[in-house]
Amino acid sequence: MSDKQLLLESLGSAAKQAGFALANLGSAAKNQLLGRIAASLSANSEAILAANARDVAAARAAGIGEAMIDRLLLTQSRLDGIIADIDKVIGLADPVGEEFDSRLLDNGMRLIRRRVPLGVIGVIYEARPNVTVEIAVLAIKTGNAVILRGGKETRESNLALAAAIRSALTAEGLPADCVQLIDNPDRELVSGLLKLDKYVDMIVPRGGQALQRLCAEQATIPVILGGIGICHLYLDQSADLERSIPVIINAKVQRPTVCNALDTLLVHASRAQELPVIAAALKAKGVRLVACGASLALLGAAGIEAEPADDNSFATEWLSLTLGVRLVTDIDHAIAHIRRFSSGHSEAILTESLTEASYFMNKVDSSAVYVNASTRFTDGGQFGLGAEVAVSTQKLHARGPMGLEALTTYKWLGIGDYTCRS
Amino acid sequence: MSDKQLLLESLGSAAKQAGFALANLGSAAKNQLLGRIAASLSANSEAILAANARDVAAARAAGIGEAMIDRLLLTQSRLDGIIADIDKVIGLADPVGEEFDSRLLDNGMRLIRRRVPLGVIGVIYEARPNVTVEIAVLAIKTGNAVILRGGKETRESNLALAAAIRSALTAEGLPADCVQLIDNPDRELVSGLLKLDKYVDMIVPRGGQALQRLCAEQATIPVILGGIGICHLYLDQSADLERSIPVIINAKVQRPTVCNALDTLLVHASRAQELPVIAAALKAKGVRLVACGASLALLGAAGIEAEPADDNSFATEWLSLTLGVRLVTDIDHAIAHIRRFSSGHSEAILTESLTEASYFMNKVDSSAVYVNASTRFTDGGQFGLGAEVAVSTQKLHARGPMGLEALTTYKWLGIGDYTCRS
Repeated sequence: MSDKQLLLESLGSAAKQAGFALANLGSAAKNQLLGRIAASLSANSEAILAANARDVAAARAAGIGEAMIDRLLLTQSRLDGIIADIDKVIGLADPVGEEFDSRLLDNGMRLIRRRVPLGVIGVIYEARPNVTVEIAVLAIKTGNAVILRGGKETRESNLALAAAIRSALTAEGLPADCVQLIDNPDRELVSGLLKLDKYVDMIVPRGGQALQRLCAEQATIPVILGGIGICHLYLDQSADLERSIPVIINAKVQRPTVCNALDTLLVHASRAQELPVIAAALKAKGVRLVACGASLALLGAAGIEAEPADDNSFATEWLSLTLGVRLVTDIDHAIAHIRRFSSGHSEAILTESLTEASYFMNKVDSSAVYVNASTRFTDGGQFGLGAEVAVSTQKLHARGPMGLEALTTYKWLGIGDYTCRS
Repeated sequence: MSDKQLLLESLGSAAKQAGFALANLGSAAKNQLLGRIAASLSANSEAILAANARDVAAARAAGIGEAMIDRLLLTQSRLDGIIADIDKVIGLADPVGEEFDSRLLDNGMRLIRRRVPLGVIGVIYEARPNVTVEIAVLAIKTGNAVILRGGKETRESNLALAAAIRSALTAEGLPADCVQLIDNPDRELVSGLLKLDKYVDMIVPRGGQALQRLCAEQATIPVILGGIGICHLYLDQSADLERSIPVIINAKVQRPTVCNALDTLLVHASRAQELPVIAAALKAKGVRLVACGASLALLGAAGIEAEPADDNSFATEWLSLTLGVRLVTDIDHAIAHIRRFSSGHSEAILTESLTEASYFMNKVDSSAVYVNASTRFTDGGQFGLGAEVAVSTQKLHARGPMGLEALTTYKWLGIGDYTCRS
């Protein structure tokens, strides 16, 4: 075995053992541990902020852009916010231990499904030190060990955060290896982690398309893909235009850099003449339009600037104030467009028609489908899940916003009386 | 694109379209279709049996063993049994369309989770023509399209079965491509199918360790691993020996070639002197014993033949009348053995102690954990699921026996009133 393989083997086996220690803790013990972690982060905030300052200085020296620096920056008030969020997790109901679908079989055996932790979760993410705390806390709340691999730009911050969390684990008499950090920036360690199926039960990549692809292709462990949203909003023939425009603007403008922001507006041909009104409202909010041929002509005639769209632009997750626009002949055309270009994240219809609303909900196969609402709602907090591990765009295990339950599985318990199968 | 890629692309895209047609069928329409499939299989039984006879003749000519020939053989009565099983599936409740966790959010949006089909399922299996019908029927019942890849030894049988199923689909006005068969034995098509993530939502490999490994390593689509059972039974200090022996025999002998059959018997050291009694009972059923050093000595002294066990033998899924035997010092030793060697399928404890029973259920992390019952119960039919797609030994999506629900996912529906996120 190479040194890297040995390192991963040792990380994995330590995580698995640590997971066994966490798996049978009661809710009170886990909440006490989380309180201890919050206290430890507070007590170590000076060291954490100093480590973060070194990361930020190194990032500035490396010429990294301000948007990314803002993401990796911790201030006292941001750190306080991260710590305060731990209290919210403490307040959430613990899904572990619940028993369901219990039944008595004809042979007298009592069959029970019990919700249990997954075991070991691997999370690969980018330069966001808040994710280090967030994921460690959600994993512990659900009795899982976690292996964290953050962006190299936040190495110092993550080491300081992980040290504070690990010291809290030790103080509570639990293995520090419940939370482990891979701080070596070598990319081979990511590939190795993705194949550590002997020890790791689930991989969650929190990052862009390239990371998602890498995980899908290399992992031998189940991966939760997600967080890529090519989202659509379809303005139907019967929609109330005046009430629709704020929803369109909300979906596009409220936070354009996130996965549930709107990417393409589909407009029923019968509303074509109203397109300039909508476009003007979007323009006033600084939105750049990329439009199909027919809408381009309409917008041009109204003196509204737009650029031509093609299949590539319709297949783009903009993550910015750009919006694709397309005129469609009817709802089936809109659905066909969505089936072709959507990433399966969030789509919406604006309509006054119950028939069209039902048809859209039935036929559109994305993780979240809205009627008369902004795509921006696809979020664990908005859905009332209390926490969000990730937003899954695949169909197995968890779909859409993933709350605490997505970090659990179940086992079947069969209690017999020396019962044999006949 | 190569010819093979073109073929897969065309299979996948046809399956996806066909899946959309199935997804919104009501239960009555799907059951009518299943009835039509049963009738079509009956009407074509002569052609199906003739095709199967060609497969069997070719297998015999190729020197294939009788056990495998028995698995690929269809007789009129076996075919009648397969057709009769369709009626049972017709009688099962349809999980699709159920809505759950519905709630009213504070902003007035109604949020609903609706159970929907996965879309397209790929199933890779060995020379068992019954699986062709079974999987097609379960997929259709749950509104999914399916791509089947059976063993090359059953190519003729599978073609005849698929033709009968497809003609029933056409007769009901549905796309024949709801059920597609890859009949080209080229192995590259399996690798290609495993990467068809643009169209296929889930892969179920039904076969041995090598197939499972291939799928875990090559697939970019979520795979349900399973069907490999290294199963343990732990005879605790307090177990009633007389009542335990039939359970041990049932777990090992009732059907030794399947995944839920017993592989290793762990015996508490305090019961060591009773080991020869258990061993004699097993020997009487033709069981070959592979024993740890301590138990080997005990058995030798009692004049009972056994072979020495090592870590390799404890890591073996026997699928035969061989049984590993090990003396353990206590329940923790038993659990440590299970954690090290188990495939996470099924384990059992035999005990009179409530404390030990609870401890075992808490600490053993396998898909099914039994108290005073045979491991042979891990089965969709035994668990009352009505059908069994596979037995999952991984923790995501479905664990243990997979019923109809495992072929579904959910989508979130949000119904607002031109609702914006604030």
